[in-house]
Amino acid sequence: MIVVRVKSEVDDDEHRRLAVHWERHGHRAVTCRVGRWTLVALPDTTPLPDPATAHLVALLRSNPTVVDVVDATDAPPLVSRCATGEDTGVPVAADRVIGGGGFSLIAGPCAVEGGEQLMGLARDLAARGAGLLRGGVYKPRTSPYAFQGLGSDGLTMLRAASAATGLPVVTEVLDAAHVAAVAEQADMLQVGSRNGQNFALLKEVALTGLPVLLKRGFGCTVDEWLHSAEYVLAAGNSGVVLCERGIRTFESATRFTLDISAVPLVKRLSHLPVIVDPSHACGRRDLIIPLAAAAAAAGADGVMVDVHPCGPAALCDGAQALSPAEFGSLVTRVGQVLGRDPQRHDTPRHDTEPARRGGRLSVVNSAV
Amino acid sequence: MIVVRVKSEVDDDEHRRLAVHWERHGHRAVTCRVGRWTLVALPDTTPLPDPATAHLVALLRSNPTVVDVVDATDAPPLVSRCATGEDTGVPVAADRVIGGGGFSLIAGPCAVEGGEQLMGLARDLAARGAGLLRGGVYKPRTSPYAFQGLGSDGLTMLRAASAATGLPVVTEVLDAAHVAAVAEQADMLQVGSRNGQNFALLKEVALTGLPVLLKRGFGCTVDEWLHSAEYVLAAGNSGVVLCERGIRTFESATRFTLDISAVPLVKRLSHLPVIVDPSHACGRRDLIIPLAAAAAAAGADGVMVDVHPCGPAALCDGAQALSPAEFGSLVTRVGQVLGRDPQRHDTPRHDTEPARRGGRLSVVNSAV
Amino acid sequence: MIVVRVKSEVDDDEHRRLAVHWERHGHRAVTCRVGRWTLVALPDTTPLPDPATAHLVALLRSNPTVVDVVDATDAPPLVSRCATGEDTGVPVAADRVIGGGGFSLIAGPCAVEGGEQLMGLARDLAARGAGLLRGGVYKPRTSPYAFQGLGSDGLTMLRAASAATGLPVVTEVLDAAHVAAVAEQADMLQVGSRNGQNFALLKEVALTGLPVLLKRGFGCTVDEWLHSAEYVLAAGNSGVVLCERGIRTFESATRFTLDISAVPLVKRLSHLPVIVDPSHACGRRDLIIPLAAAAAAAGADGVMVDVHPCGPAALCDGAQALSPAEFGSLVTRVGQVLGRDPQRHDTPRHDTEPARRGGRLSVVNSAV
Amino acid sequence: MIVVRVKSEVDDDEHRRLAVHWERHGHRAVTCRVGRWTLVALPDTTPLPDPATAHLVALLRSNPTVVDVVDATDAPPLVSRCATGEDTGVPVAADRVIGGGGFSLIAGPCAVEGGEQLMGLARDLAARGAGLLRGGVYKPRTSPYAFQGLGSDGLTMLRAASAATGLPVVTEVLDAAHVAAVAEQADMLQVGSRNGQNFALLKEVALTGLPVLLKRGFGCTVDEWLHSAEYVLAAGNSGVVLCERGIRTFESATRFTLDISAVPLVKRLSHLPVIVDPSHACGRRDLIIPLAAAAAAAGADGVMVDVHPCGPAALCDGAQALSPAEFGSLVTRVGQVLGRDPQRHDTPRHDTEPARRGGRLSVVNSAV
Repeated sequence: MIVVRVKSEVDDDEHRRLAVHWERHGHRAVTCRVGRWTLVALPDTTPLPDPATAHLVALLRSNPTVVDVVDATDAPPLVSRCATGEDTGVPVAADRVIGGGGFSLIAGPCAVEGGEQLMGLARDLAARGAGLLRGGVYKPRTSPYAFQGLGSDGLTMLRAASAATGLPVVTEVLDAAHVAAVAEQADMLQVGSRNGQNFALLKEVALTGLPVLLKRGFGCTVDEWLHSAEYVLAAGNSGVVLCERGIRTFESATRFTLDISAVPLVKRLSHLPVIVDPSHACGRRDLIIPLAAAAAAAGADGVMVDVHPCGPAALCDGAQALSPAEFGSLVTRVGQVLGRDPQRHDTPRHDTEPARRGGRLSVVNSAV
Repeated sequence: MIVVRVKSEVDDDEHRRLAVHWERHGHRAVTCRVGRWTLVALPDTTPLPDPATAHLVALLRSNPTVVDVVDATDAPPLVSRCATGEDTGVPVAADRVIGGGGFSLIAGPCAVEGGEQLMGLARDLAARGAGLLRGGVYKPRTSPYAFQGLGSDGLTMLRAASAATGLPVVTEVLDAAHVAAVAEQADMLQVGSRNGQNFALLKEVALTGLPVLLKRGFGCTVDEWLHSAEYVLAAGNSGVVLCERGIRTFESATRFTLDISAVPLVKRLSHLPVIVDPSHACGRRDLIIPLAAAAAAAGADGVMVDVHPCGPAALCDGAQALSPAEFGSLVTRVGQVLGRDPQRHDTPRHDTEPARRGGRLSVVNSAV
Repeated sequence: MIVVRVKSEVDDDEHRRLAVHWERHGHRAVTCRVGRWTLVALPDTTPLPDPATAHLVALLRSNPTVVDVVDATDAPPLVSRCATGEDTGVPVAADRVIGGGGFSLIAGPCAVEGGEQLMGLARDLAARGAGLLRGGVYKPRTSPYAFQGLGSDGLTMLRAASAATGLPVVTEVLDAAHVAAVAEQADMLQVGSRNGQNFALLKEVALTGLPVLLKRGFGCTVDEWLHSAEYVLAAGNSGVVLCERGIRTFESATRFTLDISAVPLVKRLSHLPVIVDPSHACGRRDLIIPLAAAAAAAGADGVMVDVHPCGPAALCDGAQALSPAEFGSLVTRVGQVLGRDPQRHDTPRHDTEPARRGGRLSVVNSAV
Repeated sequence: MIVVRVKSEVDDDEHRRLAVHWERHGHRAVTCRVGRWTLVALPDTTPLPDPATAHLVALLRSNPTVVDVVDATDAPPLVSRCATGEDTGVPVAADRVIGGGGFSLIAGPCAVEGGEQLMGLARDLAARGAGLLRGGVYKPRTSPYAFQGLGSDGLTMLRAASAATGLPVVTEVLDAAHVAAVAEQADMLQVGSRNGQNFALLKEVALTGLPVLLKRGFGCTVDEWLHSAEYVLAAGNSGVVLCERGIRTFESATRFTLDISAVPLVKRLSHLPVIVDPSHACGRRDLIIPLAAAAAAAGADGVMVDVHPCGPAALCDGAQALSPAEFGSLVTRVGQVLGRDPQRHDTPRHDTEPARRGGRLSVVNSAV
């Protein structure tokens, strides 16, 4: 399958013409703007060196708007590293970027439990170096009788905490019916591990134009995870941050097995940023700081951790929540491994148009 | 957590009064009609022998409409075997029951590809002993560029094939937005392995009142699978058929690893029927007949298999599709293992009101 | 890699001449007598259609003692099904064969605990249809402080129970230093799951000439398991019975996950018999009978189960031991699935020279 | 199970008297000298607060040679962290220690292929900062036809390379029959992943008194791995270095899945040092440096990597071998993560009596 890298200064009409042209020649074309490029995947092309595809590649290369044409073999085309040849930074809200050189610290309660508690925690986290606030308001729980989250009330609390601290907010969305309401309040949408191959939800979330935190399904391979990300890009949204959070294995001393190898592997296969959630991976407070340090050393673009003012009393996953002070230790430890202040690179980048303001990307997409 | 078994001849008003009563005493009550009983789960009760719960149990037992009160420990309350003490048969369309003593043969193409082909295949399968017709029209595909199914056109083809052969139809639904349309045409809704913990979809599907074929998530434990089923029953729909279809393991000679032990295990833990899908479990045509035989021997209530008139050419999962003649051999082989014609028990049971006609069960449910 | 099937009536000198001939031409030759054939693996040959190998194949086919020459691709050469084109039955003691059409019932205590108890149990098992007696005297225990077995005293008890009942004895050997002593008393040597890739032990056990019960390593693929069997055949001993006993997966409701698909898969890949140990696979008494039935239905050549006169009190793995009466039910249930008395085919076959009397096979083997 | 920490300046006779005393009171006693303590495990004691054990604990505490008495619950007694309350450094040869504050770099070819090549590589590795030389001469190969190592010739080459460079040598032993010969030439014995529960080999290796590099079985839990280490300590040898090398999971993009969480977990459960082998874990050259960095960040005491002068041409596992220059980059990268020169702490510690000179520890051990 080939993917074409096109200059982004070419306008949408030109892209539309290009797409129509290819489709007239019998090629589906799926387009996504990624950083300074527009990528066009031609999913029905055969792998090189097939003569028919080679002929098309030659033709495409002769088009002056085309920067490069490559054969994606290791990863799906729009997410493949060869498609851009460089790291993609994902803007979140007006002034944050995940990936592209920085190290993001995302922290907050597993589940939002109350407004005052959240506000106090958010201030504490911001003071200790957090770059984004996480907090669940719709919780995917194994049992229908377990606490399912505060829903829209929780969203309001998150928004207030964000306003007070300047921290953008990321929260999980479980149900396509909630996407619009969550997108109103959140700066970034999380698709959780249990929905890692919920393609209907992925498409719905993609269409908001907001950045997406895509957790790996705990039963999914890296290849499947990248294909799930491709669903988002194929719907025109390149703002995907991948999050490794542990896979299912026979080892039961930890809740899941953190697949640390997935971090450098994804960096080689894809241009998208990848972060690590050590809290859900191991489920034990005492292992989270060394695992966050390992993630930083392995090349992750950030970590996401559960923090709760009084861990063991948390309504959800208390055993894995750090205290705010422990989060401070984590920031210090990660800084030692990186050899620099992790906050330093997580600073505003005004040159990038934030996804939230831009709304949905307007490039032409074939129906997928 | 305790579950109360109540006589079903008590009318809905009486149940509503009971529920209100418990809730007034501070107990959430979640109700589901299962066969000749109504079950009421009280999720906030503590496990026995806690004195507070013991007191409530004594009170409940003194109510003449209450048949039994049990403490569910091994499985979630409404699906737990102890809740009914007997197998539940799930009626499908007017004249079929899955479970409750019969052995169901569900067969058809992985994906519906065309009306004529489907019609021919359905007639062939009916003649060879199939009891239900399966066929995918919305396909969950790892890649956004793979064939995604014929959608509503496929539903029409399924309905026509059903009308011509009398075989009820089961088909997968991926997206809550499709549930109503699929429920119009299908006799049973399948929730696939990738959506095994898509709780939003489970609730939506449950509310149709149609029977649900619930595949095990390939990364999910038996306990999580039963909890997913509990979501359906907690929404008032007891028509759940569990389907083991292989889990993810390190063995790569087969596509997944069929967890045959899950069959007798689920029979001990739950009153719900359990069937096996050997096609998706092993992904190899040459292993399907022995695995179907193993499923029958282990106590499964049926099997579901991919059949395609010309397997290797199938648009989806051709390597695992049986030919119609091979399906005939499967029916014979399963009959040998059961020591009887598998069709014999898969016959009309007019004493059970079919779910399709009854529509949604009207018992009172607390919001879950 | 090619494997040559040679008539066995050709004498050892002729085989030695053939081997020397091949080696003079630069080909290592590894020889094993299997049933009515002698197989010669030429491990350094390239897969067909390589011209050099094709030339050799043509030459070999012209030799009148050569019956067939095949290219082993799916499985290691001496164990591959294509090498013989038929099932191999493995003789045990003077009058039993595992595989080759029968269904073997191997039963006994996980660990031998005392002479009288074993004698009583062995008589009971023989009366209920067991064909071989199992019993551990050297136990591989996770902890160095757990009961490690009765050692040589236990061997004496096994021999006595065998003499009294006529049941041949199979027992595990953990340590190459014990092989000679165990081989004196046992009719068949078991290599356990933890030693599934202990190649030193496999070679040592092979050299006894006794039949070998080779359990699958719980972390090993089917391919690795077959390669472990190849170590035994490459040392000149074709008497290998493969035993599937569960693999490590994320599912913790059962002790391991019985990989039932491995049974028909091994039957397609190899000529060796394969049996199933449901006791160690699931670790729960209540699942063993359905799993034994599933094994029979899937085409296994037998089952091996733990039986203890008073299960829960057993010194080792009590939770998984059947009572003798439950073993009787298992025999009945397996008979229903097979449609015949499982004992019937497990009867003397005097036409096959028993391995025990024959001692080590005398064919020429290259050093491996 | 309780474990007693005794002053080591007490002589062996005193220990013997203590052991005899406990045994006279019906307690098996298993003794191992660890650093400045002698540990005595009493495996038949019940967990506290059982009155009988509590009484014994009180008695023991009153003995002036006894420093502490603790209840080991998370890990087997002699390896449990609570037994010593501090990290154990394992001396290797005259002047190296693994663990106890340093970071060890163990490097060399997967398999020794020739003397000159090894000599050149060893000099290169020593110059680039390696602290120990690894090299396989007995190779556990899945196939009996694969290259099995150079055997005793390889040992001679390792010894020569060690003599020329001053690097101590660690090499795998597969077969109890080779232990004595390997122990003559090597400074440290490796027990490989396939033998992670080969208890006969573990006991034999322990009795040499040499330090043991114990790889985790790829199908074994952390708990089983620690119990395997306990076999070595229970035989009187405390010189165990644990090595995480990846476990079997469903992810096939890497050869195994490196369980990075096992590093901090083992540090919390045990006093033994733990290192990481990223080469065998991932099987891909391009992931090894980030994984080594992750290991260092997670708190590992060292790494062991495959290095080959011309990777892809290696006779064994070429795809995972670093070039010597890449090994140099690894040393630099690990230094960045540690914030110091990894060599600096891997220096001579003359205060510790090296295991090699001391021979087998002479404390009294009960037969285990």
